Amino acid sequence: MTKAAVFGTGSWGTTYAMILAEAGNKTILYGRRREVVESIDRTHMNTDYLPGISLPTSLRATTDVAEALDGADLVVLAVPSQTLRANLTAWREHIPREAILVSLMKGIELGTTKRMSEVIREVAGVPQERVAVVSGPNLAKEIAQRQPAASVVACTDEGVAARLQEACHLPPWFRPYTNTDVVGVELGGAVKNVIALAVGVAHGMGMGENVGAMLMTRGLAEISRLGAALGADPHTFAGLAGMGDLVATCTSPLSRNRTFGENLGRGMTLEQVIAATRQTAEGVKSCESVLELARKHGVEMPITEVVVGVVHDGMSPTEAGMLLMSRSPKPERYGT
Amino acid sequence: MTKAAVFGTGSWGTTYAMILAEAGNKTILYGRRREVVESIDRTHMNTDYLPGISLPTSLRATTDVAEALDGADLVVLAVPSQTLRANLTAWREHIPREAILVSLMKGIELGTTKRMSEVIREVAGVPQERVAVVSGPNLAKEIAQRQPAASVVACTDEGVAARLQEACHLPPWFRPYTNTDVVGVELGGAVKNVIALAVGVAHGMGMGENVGAMLMTRGLAEISRLGAALGADPHTFAGLAGMGDLVATCTSPLSRNRTFGENLGRGMTLEQVIAATRQTAEGVKSCESVLELARKHGVEMPITEVVVGVVHDGMSPTEAGMLLMSRSPKPERYGT
Repeated sequence: MTKAAVFGTGSWGTTYAMILAEAGNKTILYGRRREVVESIDRTHMNTDYLPGISLPTSLRATTDVAEALDGADLVVLAVPSQTLRANLTAWREHIPREAILVSLMKGIELGTTKRMSEVIREVAGVPQERVAVVSGPNLAKEIAQRQPAASVVACTDEGVAARLQEACHLPPWFRPYTNTDVVGVELGGAVKNVIALAVGVAHGMGMGENVGAMLMTRGLAEISRLGAALGADPHTFAGLAGMGDLVATCTSPLSRNRTFGENLGRGMTLEQVIAATRQTAEGVKSCESVLELARKHGVEMPITEVVVGVVHDGMSPTEAGMLLMSRSPKPERYGT
Repeated sequence: MTKAAVFGTGSWGTTYAMILAEAGNKTILYGRRREVVESIDRTHMNTDYLPGISLPTSLRATTDVAEALDGADLVVLAVPSQTLRANLTAWREHIPREAILVSLMKGIELGTTKRMSEVIREVAGVPQERVAVVSGPNLAKEIAQRQPAASVVACTDEGVAARLQEACHLPPWFRPYTNTDVVGVELGGAVKNVIALAVGVAHGMGMGENVGAMLMTRGLAEISRLGAALGADPHTFAGLAGMGDLVATCTSPLSRNRTFGENLGRGMTLEQVIAATRQTAEGVKSCESVLELARKHGVEMPITEVVVGVVHDGMSPTEAGMLLMSRSPKPERYGT
């Protein structure tokens, strides 16, 4: 029997642990906060993140890192992106030598511009064949409510990807597809929030579905150009971790990035939007590191550029739209 | 000065004629119905299809085929797909020898399973380098209201595509991109309606954004598999005529196909939905010809199959969902 340890009791970590437990893996969830862990372990509820959802009784939880990692075949990481390095440094000595490390995180490390799997390899000192990522159109609340969903499990080692696919395949509820393009799968998840900001701004300005679809499609084209420069497979971006996740994020009324953009598009200033929002939108931070990465590799990312302009440099949404629509005529595909 | 003749006074034909006229082409719109043509020519309004929109005063209209085609460099066809063959047969003798024929139509001819550009080549007797197609996320009403939009102009001859791009490029309002993959661009437009039916059914059953995004993404994967069998470039499907048009259609509350599916998903029978709907949804007809095309080429199209099942063979939406989610585990990309 596969043993899985999931780190992070947020909505996606908890939901993915549900899937693993119901698919028949011995699954334990690690959390820092004792009251959350006790609630999951005893009453099978995570009221902070998944109110109203009953977790499987077979799903255990602990605040003890060594206990969580003891004999783990799968070590699933679902902590906030910017805390991964510090957390993993503290945990690494307990990770079993042969374990597969799985990232559920979507972000680029600030300062280093590293993807999460790169941080994992560096900090845990494991080869790339033992690091996998899971990404796709996976709004956790919908999955926790038992709506069907599909996702991508990626690892450079096809056999490892297939092993993880088997561990989390739970028909007819959760359908994972394998892919060997870790770089592409991670970039899709990291850059989509920047595009969701742009789509939000456009809708806030009163634009309809053409503009939304245009921004998603040309947004995906610029993610693909960045991916090509970093060695990703362009086909990945047409898949669930590229287009799929982008569409779910840009069309969900629950998306913080989209909502943040909408408020900017309606004419609020950055300060007003931040004051009105409880949580920060991930894309507000990551648009700058994505643009830094693009410039480092000489990649044109016009939508990301105007998002940085609007969010950080006082560019008006109207000016941003004019800039995008006034670029020189182009073939649909270039630079990939 | 380029002279353009646009055939068809529906919302997209009229809107594309507006773009051509404003971009500086001498543009004339051909229509069958005298009162519509007179209204466009004299009062610059097309109240049936674009109520409240002022057309450019330079845009002329006529019911005389020979007048419309006299000296035309661009012949733009925007008639209902299933009437193209008969119409073009009547018009072909007046088409100037060197004119470029441009299709705005999205459909597959019933019976022959031919794409619109194939019908044009066959009926007008022109080589493929003189047939171009325009397709993308282009809900006509939004463009007529002066919202920005982007599209793809495709021709196997890159120079012809670039010439058409120049003719309809109108910054910051309308941004066309060139592409040489006519097959892919046409398939994207024809199959998207089938997928929009599926997305509608899912939303009607109460599903959220994950399921919608999953159906769009895996729907695009099956369009790409069909495209590969027919010689299309897989990259086209990640572009504006593939993903872009699909997303706009599946997310627009104005989409007839999506609304039709929603009613089925809520439990109405086909007869009840048809009785409640004024116009037929294109996907209801074309799902069968798409499936026929797929079977002819040995291509798996599981979403199209269940759409045919639900729409025509009494399959319940729940059964359709179970079937899709219970397929054997797969790599994300196969058969392309």
